[in-house]
Amino acid sequence: MALRKAYVGVEVVGFARRPEVASRALEIGAVDRAEAGLSSVVKDADVVFIATPAMVVKELLVEIGSHLGDGVIVSDTASTKATVMDWADEILPPSVSFIGGHPMAGREESGIDASDGELFEGCTYCLVPGRNATRGATDKLEDLVSHIGATPLFIAAEEHDTLVAGISHLPLVVSLALVAATTESPSWPSMAALAATGYRDLTRLASGDPRMGRDICLTNREQIQHWIDTYIEEMKELRRQIAAGGSDLEETFLRLKNARDDWLKKRGW
Amino acid sequence: MALRKAYVGVEVVGFARRPEVASRALEIGAVDRAEAGLSSVVKDADVVFIATPAMVVKELLVEIGSHLGDGVIVSDTASTKATVMDWADEILPPSVSFIGGHPMAGREESGIDASDGELFEGCTYCLVPGRNATRGATDKLEDLVSHIGATPLFIAAEEHDTLVAGISHLPLVVSLALVAATTESPSWPSMAALAATGYRDLTRLASGDPRMGRDICLTNREQIQHWIDTYIEEMKELRRQIAAGGSDLEETFLRLKNARDDWLKKRGW
Repeated sequence: MALRKAYVGVEVVGFARRPEVASRALEIGAVDRAEAGLSSVVKDADVVFIATPAMVVKELLVEIGSHLGDGVIVSDTASTKATVMDWADEILPPSVSFIGGHPMAGREESGIDASDGELFEGCTYCLVPGRNATRGATDKLEDLVSHIGATPLFIAAEEHDTLVAGISHLPLVVSLALVAATTESPSWPSMAALAATGYRDLTRLASGDPRMGRDICLTNREQIQHWIDTYIEEMKELRRQIAAGGSDLEETFLRLKNARDDWLKKRGW
Repeated sequence: MALRKAYVGVEVVGFARRPEVASRALEIGAVDRAEAGLSSVVKDADVVFIATPAMVVKELLVEIGSHLGDGVIVSDTASTKATVMDWADEILPPSVSFIGGHPMAGREESGIDASDGELFEGCTYCLVPGRNATRGATDKLEDLVSHIGATPLFIAAEEHDTLVAGISHLPLVVSLALVAATTESPSWPSMAALAATGYRDLTRLASGDPRMGRDICLTNREQIQHWIDTYIEEMKELRRQIAAGGSDLEETFLRLKNARDDWLKKRGW
C-alpha cells in the first residue's frame, strides 16, 4: 500500500498462498494484481519483497532462487538479519542483489487486514546490503525506502541483531513473561478485573504472531539470551533496592524516568 | 473535574501547597474554589479526597485529623491499601468514615496539567471501607464512584495489595528494569535510533512520577518482591526454551497470546 501510494505507474504484484488473502489484498488496494504462482510473480519483477516470519524467508528464497532475472533486487523484512544474510548468500545466484531490510515499525496485529499504507512513515528502516548487492541496487532500495516515508539506516547484520535484541526482542520476551507470571497465577480471575491500561500496554507485544516471535528467537538466540541475563540482573537490583526500602529507590526511579523521557524527546514523541 | 461534571450544585474545593497549582486548577475548571489552608478546606467538607503518593497520605491524615467534622467521609487514591488503612485507623477520630479508594486508571503524566475529567470512565474503582466507616458513608461513596463513570469494587486491603502488585506494581518494575537494561548499555546511543513503538509502550510506566513509584514499593514491599520472584522464574523458563530452540516455543507463545487476547476481549478492548 505504501509503495502504491509512493509510486504512480509502478505495478505492485502480490503473492499469497491462500486465495482469500489474494482477493482481500486486491479489494483493499494493497496490490495491482495478485498471483497464485510464486515463479510467475518474481519472473519479471525488478524488486522482490519477502515479508514473512524469518524461517519462511529461507523457504521462499529456495523457491524463487532459480526464477529471478539478472540484476533483480530482493529484500526481506524479518526482524533478524545475520541468519537471513547467510541464507541469501547460500541460496541466491550471484546475479541477484540481496539487501536485507528491517523496518522498525509494526503492530501486534498481523495478516492482510492489519495492513496500513502509512506504517512506515517516520520509522527507521535498517538496510543490510548482501555480498553480491551492486551499488546501483543499494542506491535504488535506499531511495525506495525514503519514498515510502522511512529513514534508511545502513547497518551490519551482526550489529543489527545485537541492538535489535535489546530494544525489540527483549521487550517481546519481557511482555510474554509478564503475561505468564500473571495469567498463570491462581489469582488471575480476580486480577483480570483490576488490570487496566498499564497492564494492557506492557503486555501488548505478547499478542503478536507466535510464529514470528518464535522465528525471532530461533534466529537470534545468543543475543536474546544475553539481553535476558542483563535484564534479570536489573530486576534483581531493583528487587534489592525495594527490599532495602532505602532512599536510593527514588533516585533510581528518577534516573530511569529521565533516561526514558530523554529518548522520547529525541524521537520527537 | 469528573465530580464537577457529575454533580451540579456541589462545590468542589481544592487544596494545593503551591499557589500556581491552585490558580491553574481554577483556570481549567477542576475546582469551584481553591484554598491555601488545609484546615479551612476540610472543616466544612462532606467528602475529602486525598490524591497524593502513598507516603504523603499519612502526613495529610495527621494534618487534617483534628479539623474534620463528625460524619465526614475521607478517601484516598493511593495504589496500596493495607498501610493506608492502618494509618487511617491510627490517626483519624472514630467519628470519621475512612474508605480507602484506588481507581484502576491513570497515565504516566502527573500534576495538574495531566488532569482529565473522563479518566475514570469505565474503570474499576476499588473501595476498602475502614473499621469506622458507616453503612451510609459507604453507600454514598459507592454512589459517587458510579456517578463519575467508574465501576465500584469492594475488596479487602490485603487482597487488593496482592492482586494489584501483580497487574500494576510488577508491570512498573518490569518497565523500569527494561529502561535500565537498555539505556545503561554502552550500545544505547546506537540502539536509541532503532527503538520504536514496542519499546515506547513497554517502557511507558517508567516515565511515571518517581515519588509515586517509590511510595508504591515502600508500602507493598513483600508482595512486589514475591511477584518479582515469580516473574524472574518465568523469564528463566522462556530463556530455557529459547536456548533449547525447540518446538515448545511456538506453543508457549501461542498460549500466552491467547491468554492476553482473552483478557482484552473480556475487557471489551
